[in-house]
Formats: sequence, C-alpha cells, structure tokens
Amino acid sequence: MTGELLRELEINSDLMGRVIGEDMYPVSVMPECLREAVRDYPLRGGKRLRSALLRFCCGLFGGDVDSARFAAAAVEIYHNWTLVHDDIIDDDALRRHRASSHASLAEFASSLGMGCSDALKYGRDMAMLAGDIQHGWAANMLLRSVECGVLGDVVLWLARELHENVGRVLISGEALDVDYSHKIWDMVTIAEVRRMLEMKTGALLDFCAVSGAAIGMGIGEGVREDSRVALISKYARAIGLAFQLRDDWLGIYSDEEETGKPLASDLSGGKPTMLFLRTLENLDDGGRSRFMAFVRRPKFSHEDICEIRRIISDSGAEAAVLDECSALAQDAKSLVDALPRNRYNGLLSDLADHVTTRNA
Amino acid sequence: MTGELLRELEINSDLMGRVIGEDMYPVSVMPECLREAVRDYPLRGGKRLRSALLRFCCGLFGGDVDSARFAAAAVEIYHNWTLVHDDIIDDDALRRHRASSHASLAEFASSLGMGCSDALKYGRDMAMLAGDIQHGWAANMLLRSVECGVLGDVVLWLARELHENVGRVLISGEALDVDYSHKIWDMVTIAEVRRMLEMKTGALLDFCAVSGAAIGMGIGEGVREDSRVALISKYARAIGLAFQLRDDWLGIYSDEEETGKPLASDLSGGKPTMLFLRTLENLDDGGRSRFMAFVRRPKFSHEDICEIRRIISDSGAEAAVLDECSALAQDAKSLVDALPRNRYNGLLSDLADHVTTRNA
Repeated sequence: MTGELLRELEINSDLMGRVIGEDMYPVSVMPECLREAVRDYPLRGGKRLRSALLRFCCGLFGGDVDSARFAAAAVEIYHNWTLVHDDIIDDDALRRHRASSHASLAEFASSLGMGCSDALKYGRDMAMLAGDIQHGWAANMLLRSVECGVLGDVVLWLARELHENVGRVLISGEALDVDYSHKIWDMVTIAEVRRMLEMKTGALLDFCAVSGAAIGMGIGEGVREDSRVALISKYARAIGLAFQLRDDWLGIYSDEEETGKPLASDLSGGKPTMLFLRTLENLDDGGRSRFMAFVRRPKFSHEDICEIRRIISDSGAEAAVLDECSALAQDAKSLVDALPRNRYNGLLSDLADHVTTRNA
Repeated sequence: MTGELLRELEINSDLMGRVIGEDMYPVSVMPECLREAVRDYPLRGGKRLRSALLRFCCGLFGGDVDSARFAAAAVEIYHNWTLVHDDIIDDDALRRHRASSHASLAEFASSLGMGCSDALKYGRDMAMLAGDIQHGWAANMLLRSVECGVLGDVVLWLARELHENVGRVLISGEALDVDYSHKIWDMVTIAEVRRMLEMKTGALLDFCAVSGAAIGMGIGEGVREDSRVALISKYARAIGLAFQLRDDWLGIYSDEEETGKPLASDLSGGKPTMLFLRTLENLDDGGRSRFMAFVRRPKFSHEDICEIRRIISDSGAEAAVLDECSALAQDAKSLVDALPRNRYNGLLSDLADHVTTRNA
C-alpha cells in the first residue's frame, strides 16, 4: 500500500470511529448487552474501505468530503449489520480476532447462569436483534446527511438507493450463498457464484461509489446517467469482485493470525467459492474425489491445510484466481484513468491495487 | 364492531393488499423461496389495524387519505418484519392459522431432502433474511410517499421517526421481552412489563397516528409540538397497551381456532405477562406455587387450560386486566373527543372499543 493511501485510510478510519462512536442512536437501546452489541462491530475498526471509497468518490467529483461523513458512517454500519447476521448463519465464532456478536452474547448469557443450549439461542436471538437495530441505525445515519449540507432531494434518493439497490440485492446474494452451501457442488456454476458475489459485495461498493459521486456533485435522481458515474460504478464492482477473489484466496493461503478466521472455513461450511470450483474444473476424477473429501469437514489439521493448498495450487486454480484478481484491479485502474484527475484519483487507483494484494 | 368501522377496515385491508401486492420491491429477490417468504406475511391479511390507524389520522387532520397509502403500507410491512423475527425467537410454528415464516421455509428445505436439523437451521436463517428484506422494503415503501404528493421534507422526517422512534424502541422492547422470559418472575415488575409493552407495541402505533397527522397537515419536523398531535399520540399509546392486555387475555381465554395460536403459549415460553404477574400478586403462597408449576411447560392439556383459567379468574387478575383494558379504551375515546369532529373521529372512537373487545 502506498504511504498516501495508508495515511488516508487511517484518517478515514479515525473519522468513522468518531462519527459512529459519538452518534446517540444506540444510547437508549435496552437491555445493556444489546446496546453493547449494537455498538460492537461498527466500532471494532478494521480498514473501513467502504466509507473510504465513498469519501474518495465524493472528493473525486469535486465535493467537500466532510459533507459525506454521515453517508460514509452509514455504509460502515450497514456493512456491519449484514456481518452480524452472516456470522449467525455461518456459525462463525470469530470476527476480527474477537468473539463474534452472537458468540459474545451467548458467553454473556452463560455468565448469568443460563444453560448451554439456552445461552446459544439467547446469543443468536439477541445478535439478530442487534443487527436489526444496526440496520435502522444505518438508515438513520444516512438521513442525517441533511445536517451536513446534503440537499434533501439528494438524501431521499440516496435512501431509496440504499433500500432498493443495496438491501434487497445484498441480502439476496447472502441467501444464494446459503443455498449454494447446501447444494451438490456439481450443480453450482462459476457464473452463478460470480453473480452471487456481485450481489453480496458489489452492490454495496457500487452504492459507496455512486453515492459519493452524488454527494460530490449535489445530484440525486439522474446521477447514474452521467457517463463518469457509470465508470466509477464499474470501478466499484470490479474491485468488489477482486476483493472477494482475494478473500477466497486468503481463506486458504493466508496466515490465520492475520485474518482472525480459521483457515478453509469456506470448505468446512460447504461453500463453493470460485477458487474451489476452478480447482474442480481443472482436476481429473481422482483429484476431484481427493479434494471433495475435505468438503464439509468441521476441522482441519495443519497437514490437511497443506494438502488442500497443494491440490489447489497444482490444479492451476490458485494462479487462475490470482490472475483474475490482478486483471480486475487493472481494469479498475484504467477506469479511474478516464475520470477527473485530482488526488482522489490516485487514491482510488492505489485502492484497487491494495484490495488485490492485501494480506488480511 | 360498528358497521361503519367494519366497512372501513375492510376497505383499508383491501387497499393495503393491493398496494403491497402490486409493489415491485420483492420481484427481484432470489432465491424464489426467499421471495415468497418476503411477500408472505405482509399479504396474509388480517385486520391491518396499523395502516387503518394511520389513514384515519390523516383524514382526521384534514388530509387526503389516499396520499397516506404508501406510508400505511409501510407500517404494515414494518410490523410484519418484526413478526417474522419474533416468530423465530419465540419458536412459534403458527402465524394467522398457517405455518410461520421459518417453519414454512424449513418445510421447504425438508422437501428438498435436507436433514431435520439442517432444514430447521435453513428455515431460521432464511426467515431472518426475509425479515431483513422486509425491513428494507418498509423503509423504501415509506419513501415512496413522495410519489403520492407528500412533501420531501415531510417524508424525510417520517423516515427519521421510523428509524429513531420506532425501530430502536420496538426492537429494544422485543429484547426486553426475551430477557424477561429468562428471568425468575419475582425479579420482573408489572411496571417493567408495562414499559416493555409500550416499547414493543406503543411506539409503532404512536408512529402510525403521528405520521398520519403529519401527512394530513403537510408538516414534518415540529408536528409533535401541535397539542392535538400530542392527544392523538396519547390515544395511540393507550390503545396500544389495551391491545396488548387484550392479547394477554386472549392468550388464555380465547378460542384457539379464532386466534390460530396454541393457548397459554406465553406460559410455555416463560413470558411474565401483566395478566400472570397480577395473578401472582393476588395469590397466597400455595396458589402461587400451583400456578408456577405451569410455567415453561411445553404443552397443556384441556384440563390444564381449565385449571389455569380457574386460578387466574379466581385470583381476580382476569377482571383487573379486563377493567384496565376498558379504562384505557375509555381514556382513548375521551382523547379523540377533543380532536377535530369528522367521520374519522367516530372511526377512531370505535377503533378504541374494537381493540379492547376483539376476540382474535
């Protein structure tokens, strides 16, 4: 990552921590454990790439990036409510190196003396409600944009975009992800997984880019008709897919300590990622059954992980996925080349590189 | 119920069925089972009292009730997403005489050959996502109000009210309800349960009344400063609490076939309703332990139900709760007496009576 991008991401992350941390929305939430859960993920930090993308695009189109701060905080909170519900669905115990929302609420219930299965249910139920409140919080944070100078009509348009072109699409993507994990992998195509990823990740990144542009130019309805906005939307979708492909790769090849997630959890969960489907495509029958023997196993030893890595690499799928990832970053960079030339242009170009080379 | 109220509720319910049924929001939801689940509860019908209240209040304050149709549909969808998530939390298998959302999605998964515990999890996960989409659908439907002549500023104010004063409060109420069901009943006071009900039911009814008034008068921000709006808000909260008390009573004394829910499910679920807490308050130690022996039992025989009814009635709690319910209706009616006199005034008065005398 370039020094400038790193600095800007830190500035953005600090700003988001402040805007989210100071917002009064969660203050009246009851009971206390729910209030804490509502604030938890949005304040765990991380790179906060979505809000950075939104603010960079606002700046790219000549806007005052400060006027985009509530919209930027809104996309962070929005992303986080979907993570809370995803973690319940995927039975993930960890998120960013700490207990996931439902796991930490279940621990809390245990500490009150609740029996094990009651505590697990309490954790899931409360985490579902925490995500629900965060969903409302995100929508409300976006509407606060009128307080920092965004025109009412623009805010109304942004809110409709969020509910129509993000919510519905992103959640459908998540549902397809659930569906595919229950299917026989032969029945799922690479094209279907790609479309699912475009829904699950691309739609929100597209919103970040386009809403940043909309705030930057002070245009709501009709902003998508601007050819430059079409380019930035394509850019966002390209880095979204690249991000996911890198995620697939990190899920197998990363250092567990850096990502804070158990390795090969997609394989345990039975999720046919593009990396796995490419692997199967490239293998003969013998290789395929060796690989499929690992699918839906609850745990993997160090030796298992080495063997899984070997199969995927030897099949050529690792290289294919990394190549596709780089090609997407290249596409994204050439798209920003045709956009206004200012410092945000360079940041967006560096962001495309970062997404495809990150290690966590 | 008076003939006029009955007719108006039917007109309202038909209109809502049309507005919700014709809305394109769910059309692109995938997979198909999720799309069906999203449309399911909002189109199951029922009395649709919340949308009726909103439209009546719009008319009461001199507005064109037709301009409130998207806001009215929004509160119905909003109510329904909370029911979908509630039903998961309460493990309720039935809703309005049919399989609940998660139960019907689990049935669907079974029909595809999924094993029992996987199918149950699939049902819960998908129903959670269905509720999430409905949550976004409701927010989006409210924003559509600009299409039927409501001013942008009014719509922005309504949207903020929905997320700030309904979402957060209603979901906190639901979370407290979960919490109380895990507590020893001695540790829960009648005042706490009353406050929980005001949050869980009162906040949305208050929104219905006040947003109807806001649309009727064309005022957003500041509408709550109007003393007549303060009265209609009080009215809504009074009928909300009366509604819940009647619900408590119906949960024990109704005809199972009319409500479509198993009798005494609150008792099985360990929920300390006001009716139960009053019962305990009125009983001596012996009576109390006879009654407490029924708490958290998974099923009740016909004889059990008769015995539970006898204990509650003999304790005087049944009469006390029905009296409180009538007193709330009386209060509500005297509040509308001080409001503009038109046909909606009479309908709101009749609605207060209906809520407290309904049998399902």
